[in-house]
Amino acid sequence: MSRTAPSHRVRVTELSDSGSRRREDRVAGEEPLEIRLEWPGAAARRVWVTMRTPGHDFELAAGYCFHEGLIDPRSIRRVAYCTDVKLAEEERFNVVTVSLSAPPLREPSLTHDAMATGSSACGVCGKESLEQALSVRVGSRWLGDLPTQQIVRSLPDRLRDAQPLFDVTGGVHAAGLATADGQLLVVREDVGRHNAVDKLAGNRILAGEHPAAAVLVLSGRVGFELLAKASAAGHGAVVAVGAPSALAVRLAAEAGIVLYGFSSGGRTVRYTGE
Amino acid sequence: MSRTAPSHRVRVTELSDSGSRRREDRVAGEEPLEIRLEWPGAAARRVWVTMRTPGHDFELAAGYCFHEGLIDPRSIRRVAYCTDVKLAEEERFNVVTVSLSAPPLREPSLTHDAMATGSSACGVCGKESLEQALSVRVGSRWLGDLPTQQIVRSLPDRLRDAQPLFDVTGGVHAAGLATADGQLLVVREDVGRHNAVDKLAGNRILAGEHPAAAVLVLSGRVGFELLAKASAAGHGAVVAVGAPSALAVRLAAEAGIVLYGFSSGGRTVRYTGE
Repeated sequence: MSRTAPSHRVRVTELSDSGSRRREDRVAGEEPLEIRLEWPGAAARRVWVTMRTPGHDFELAAGYCFHEGLIDPRSIRRVAYCTDVKLAEEERFNVVTVSLSAPPLREPSLTHDAMATGSSACGVCGKESLEQALSVRVGSRWLGDLPTQQIVRSLPDRLRDAQPLFDVTGGVHAAGLATADGQLLVVREDVGRHNAVDKLAGNRILAGEHPAAAVLVLSGRVGFELLAKASAAGHGAVVAVGAPSALAVRLAAEAGIVLYGFSSGGRTVRYTGE
Repeated sequence: MSRTAPSHRVRVTELSDSGSRRREDRVAGEEPLEIRLEWPGAAARRVWVTMRTPGHDFELAAGYCFHEGLIDPRSIRRVAYCTDVKLAEEERFNVVTVSLSAPPLREPSLTHDAMATGSSACGVCGKESLEQALSVRVGSRWLGDLPTQQIVRSLPDRLRDAQPLFDVTGGVHAAGLATADGQLLVVREDVGRHNAVDKLAGNRILAGEHPAAAVLVLSGRVGFELLAKASAAGHGAVVAVGAPSALAVRLAAEAGIVLYGFSSGGRTVRYTGE
């Protein structure tokens, strides 16, 4: 099976009290994706390499660059796989280039996820890098409607009904964007929860839409990284099936995002936005 | 509460069919940790910044450097928080320096997690970075006993009984090292699953032990990154409560590691090691 498939067949042995049984199983694909940016007068530059589940790669590349504050979505001219003949056929689908019609909003250098090694005397000693690690872009605040608590409590089940890759593998995260009345606009799945959220933003951007939505729904826990992306996009609320971290709660409060955790079985817990 | 505490108290509103209820909740701490390496004749260098749950920070720093192939554990002279007076009191506990008695095994530059931005002409086009992203250090193969399937099936419950931070927050990953007869040697919890695994190796190293164990037990899914760490340490088997990715299955087969997924309720699924 192609290395760039979203899922792969494997032979496994299931072991339980009733004995052992050979059967076929499906596991989620996980492959590296290199994201590159190019703009007029500049050679393409690598901005990130992430392990991701193949599929919706252009959305992932566009959404990542947007969440990191690298690009104005309107400047995207083209998103494409690499066409370099030196790469093996399959590797070409592991390199995506986002071409801009104008320079990026900032120099694509250090990012949260690609903290480069630096040499620094102990006078600097972490202060700069720690501040950078915690820096969050706050997009425009959500001014539209927010979901009622009834809608919030229904969203995890709606997301669960739209996870085909989870259905066959049991092993990928999902994220969705929803309107205030609970309609899912788009759902994406990935072994990396941050990738799923990047794909959502990329989907909206490449469709010519603004990436902000009333609700970002998450199948798992919500930590700093996902809240930073939600803040950059300007979503109104985040509804997670799992637990939030302390830092996620703090960032949500600062960004004016209503944060719900432990949302399942018709129950939810609101952490911010009284 | 201190920003470097493993968990924090927050006021929340629980919403369900039976109405809304204000109560206290506890959420897992999440703070940046800068890891630095220094050795005779060299200034301290930043090698990584990770978001982690505070606690066992020295283990995390030592284990990360070991898993990344940066250090021979025997060369560790000291692990300490930063004592720079320019840092705010709390930030000092977010910078850890590993001091070596000899130079590191390789130059601390690019790592899987800290893929620096590079500028490259399209003739290179991803090949190098993709290969680097997929490079895995294979430690010495495990030659000791392996757990029986009965032991394997019991390990998730044993791990679950040793997760105090999960008990109060419901929102952290856990990882443990176990002997072939199912005895847990050490368990660590963290909002980042990779951090929990780094802490395990660091625990063994700082205790003067070899980091390899018969079994690495994981509370969640197992992807490339965790299998790469298991391979570097040289564990005999990996037992995960969640699903493995396709890449994790491939790496386990290549490294000779017996990989179990979906291990819970007395049931498990063996993916490699027939």
